[in-house]
Amino acid sequence: MARNIKPRAEDYAQWYLDVIKAAELADYSPVRGCMVIRPEGYAVWEAIQRDLDRRFKETGHVNAYFPLLIPQSFLAKEAQHVEGFAMECAVVTHSRLEKDPGGGLRPGSPLEEPLVVRPTSETIIGHMYAQWVQSYRDLPVLINQWANVMRWEMRTRLFLRTAEFLWQEGHTAHETEQECAEETARMLGVYASFAEEFLAVPVVQGEKTEAERFPGAVHTYAIEGLMQDGKALQCGTSHDLGQNFAKAFEIQFLGRDQQQHFAWTTSWGVSTRLIGALIMAHSDDAGLVLPPRVAPVVAAIIPIFKKDEERAAVAAYVDELLAKLVGADEVVAAKTRMAAGDLQQVFFDKHTHQRIVVDWRDARPGDKQYHWEQRGVPLRIECGPRDVEKRAFVVKRRVEGDKSFVDLDAASPEWLRGLLEGSQAALFERAKAFRDANTRTASSYDELKAILAEHGGFVRCHFVPDPEREAKIKEETKATVRCIPFEQSGRSGKCIVTGVETETEVIFAQAY
Amino acid sequence: MARNIKPRAEDYAQWYLDVIKAAELADYSPVRGCMVIRPEGYAVWEAIQRDLDRRFKETGHVNAYFPLLIPQSFLAKEAQHVEGFAMECAVVTHSRLEKDPGGGLRPGSPLEEPLVVRPTSETIIGHMYAQWVQSYRDLPVLINQWANVMRWEMRTRLFLRTAEFLWQEGHTAHETEQECAEETARMLGVYASFAEEFLAVPVVQGEKTEAERFPGAVHTYAIEGLMQDGKALQCGTSHDLGQNFAKAFEIQFLGRDQQQHFAWTTSWGVSTRLIGALIMAHSDDAGLVLPPRVAPVVAAIIPIFKKDEERAAVAAYVDELLAKLVGADEVVAAKTRMAAGDLQQVFFDKHTHQRIVVDWRDARPGDKQYHWEQRGVPLRIECGPRDVEKRAFVVKRRVEGDKSFVDLDAASPEWLRGLLEGSQAALFERAKAFRDANTRTASSYDELKAILAEHGGFVRCHFVPDPEREAKIKEETKATVRCIPFEQSGRSGKCIVTGVETETEVIFAQAY
Repeated sequence: MARNIKPRAEDYAQWYLDVIKAAELADYSPVRGCMVIRPEGYAVWEAIQRDLDRRFKETGHVNAYFPLLIPQSFLAKEAQHVEGFAMECAVVTHSRLEKDPGGGLRPGSPLEEPLVVRPTSETIIGHMYAQWVQSYRDLPVLINQWANVMRWEMRTRLFLRTAEFLWQEGHTAHETEQECAEETARMLGVYASFAEEFLAVPVVQGEKTEAERFPGAVHTYAIEGLMQDGKALQCGTSHDLGQNFAKAFEIQFLGRDQQQHFAWTTSWGVSTRLIGALIMAHSDDAGLVLPPRVAPVVAAIIPIFKKDEERAAVAAYVDELLAKLVGADEVVAAKTRMAAGDLQQVFFDKHTHQRIVVDWRDARPGDKQYHWEQRGVPLRIECGPRDVEKRAFVVKRRVEGDKSFVDLDAASPEWLRGLLEGSQAALFERAKAFRDANTRTASSYDELKAILAEHGGFVRCHFVPDPEREAKIKEETKATVRCIPFEQSGRSGKCIVTGVETETEVIFAQAY
Repeated sequence: MARNIKPRAEDYAQWYLDVIKAAELADYSPVRGCMVIRPEGYAVWEAIQRDLDRRFKETGHVNAYFPLLIPQSFLAKEAQHVEGFAMECAVVTHSRLEKDPGGGLRPGSPLEEPLVVRPTSETIIGHMYAQWVQSYRDLPVLINQWANVMRWEMRTRLFLRTAEFLWQEGHTAHETEQECAEETARMLGVYASFAEEFLAVPVVQGEKTEAERFPGAVHTYAIEGLMQDGKALQCGTSHDLGQNFAKAFEIQFLGRDQQQHFAWTTSWGVSTRLIGALIMAHSDDAGLVLPPRVAPVVAAIIPIFKKDEERAAVAAYVDELLAKLVGADEVVAAKTRMAAGDLQQVFFDKHTHQRIVVDWRDARPGDKQYHWEQRGVPLRIECGPRDVEKRAFVVKRRVEGDKSFVDLDAASPEWLRGLLEGSQAALFERAKAFRDANTRTASSYDELKAILAEHGGFVRCHFVPDPEREAKIKEETKATVRCIPFEQSGRSGKCIVTGVETETEVIFAQAY
């Protein structure tokens, strides 16, 4: 099997696509800019959904579902919002297909009002909240939606920027400005913990400058991760919308003071873009590296044999090992389960559906090793005739890249979990060390430019945010203010552009 | 609080809408025919998803995601398929909005080829499978998709028939005709077990007649439930597509015989329509009745008190009860959780997110009783000062409609689960008794008409399926062949229309 992944050092953009292809995470579709998320990629999204959804529910949120199509007039109700999204909308204008004179098809009945495929749902949700909220007793409204959205992008890139993507969008309404601010902060915190604990991606939390704010928001906060090529990736945003959308959609309530008030609203979201973040933060020239908590397959067992009687002995031994890891019932159940190409699927965790795979395909052990390495499976386990004899087996760890011999008697669910958690922690520490090593400080604009040109990465400096100044810097360096980080030194310094004394430190970086 | 649900006997259609409204399951949206699934309704869908998804995975399936938009030319590749869906398609013709001369908005850039919002995904998935499947080693492909779809319906009804709905669609490809047939049967079986074990809705399994077949299928199988008004509701379908879509989309593979073969494919789906089935199978004039396994809230605790010191004593007592049911840690965690209107949310099951609610709202206990009864919560628990004294509490069961006194010491997770499972079983038995009592046999067309006019329900009879005959019967009786049930008596009899001797028994019913 030929190496099919371009090394990062040669062509980072191609490496990214090669990793996705080799791990079968996603494909481009026949619809321009839209991707197909293949089973291996979708299982990562399911893991993300499961963990985030738990965090949302533990903070009191519930899920709901709002229509895909939004009347175009709704978009126009919030002036900045329509400016931000009108250019990217897919527009539904007809309600059926009819035969054209040439025997082909053409759009049939025109709609009275064109509908847009939601690029985000503040407008339609605002419209519904206006009907549901009458009194302060109806607040807070704490709703999240898991959905597909469309933004017609010109340049697309699998997971990072596609015309259609999957995401969650939280939309909450509150009685007071303070509760609204607290919610915005709370959800940014949820995102930060999730990114670090689950994705093993260290992130910086901070506020966006006016130039980078969500169209219609009063404050936008974000978590920013650093990829291996030194570029930043925005991993999640949380918006304090103030009363802007409440006024546009008339979300009003009778307050404790018996007066009518506009509600205070927030929105917050993460998307399938996180899968791109995962890939670029952790993977290597051998392919995908998945944090064990995310991995759909936690271990691949590769049986090694030549003769038929060896195969029989190894098969019995693998069953013995599996029974220690997942219980004998599940080993029996797995034998009745369908799977493509002689891949036996055994559930390690019934709740997360994380699996152990036994690779009985007709291929060389070396090719199988390579196959599972490319797919980022945290552990590969080899069992051959000599292992059967010694009642032991070989474990290769994807994150640490090492290999060890383990006694069969040592195998247990706790043993496996321990190994996985060890790799999870090691991966986070590695990403954090990389991020810290690539966070530098600039005390002048020239220094900022030099660091960006030579190293990339995060560059901290004193800076007074201003849309025009930021546009000019972007033009000259391709870098933007990623955020005004919550962690400030508290020391004042000179703004690297204006020279004005300021306490504000920002982080610049080139970004995806 | 006024009774706001029309009794079934007076106006069944209005009763259905009133139940949905009172339980806050769904709302119509400003987009014609599209619904908003509110949190209480969406939690039911999440429960359905969780249980079905587990069943899919236990039978070897994985999830993936395919594009929302499908080129219109794809639809035309399978002749029957386009006939079946062209009239119902929402068509995307433009890629952005622009300002019109009047200052409003209008569709901007026309697309080269119109795209339809998927009404179902056989075509785009077939296109991708053609690329993924090269050899028999790549088979079977066992993929499911959870997604939104659109079918522009003229007459809509919440959950039962809406322009946009949520569903899952399984799409599998196989090496042989027999494996394909086995998969189609397997998934119908999964649906039947799910409907009976989880939704507590007894169903009849059988094959659809040619007239009712999915456009492009060789065989369509369905599970059919009977609603309280005597109408049938199709709850799920499984299609054997033969090689029709494989030929239209060129899903070909190199077989074990070194020859090229077309794959054999299936598709199968259930939708948010199941929520309509749940409502109409179980609910009563007091509102929603939910099977406990489905219920997002398994128990509502209603504290009863007048004076402040009573409130304090009752609150401490409720915490004691909760600690017995969910553990002390969760009681503490629940206190930090946000919720609207003084509703304390306590998780009973961390995996299913099923909750216990403590209703501290400022309202009369009677109104709270009514509130939770309307929402179909399986258990309502009252705790007042006298209960504190006696160290006991009152439990009212929604399904059984009874009331009992329970010692605090008897409360435990197992006790609660036992009660819930008892109600689950009772609900299924009740629905089954109703279904059996409303399944009748007709030996002539006149008898069929008389039964349909007088009772409705399922009517079994000997009948030779034929699209024209079925169309005429539908015109005269509004009834259709729901299925040719798998359970056949084996006795031959005269076809009720043609008089021809046949062994085929079918089930007629009016249907949603």
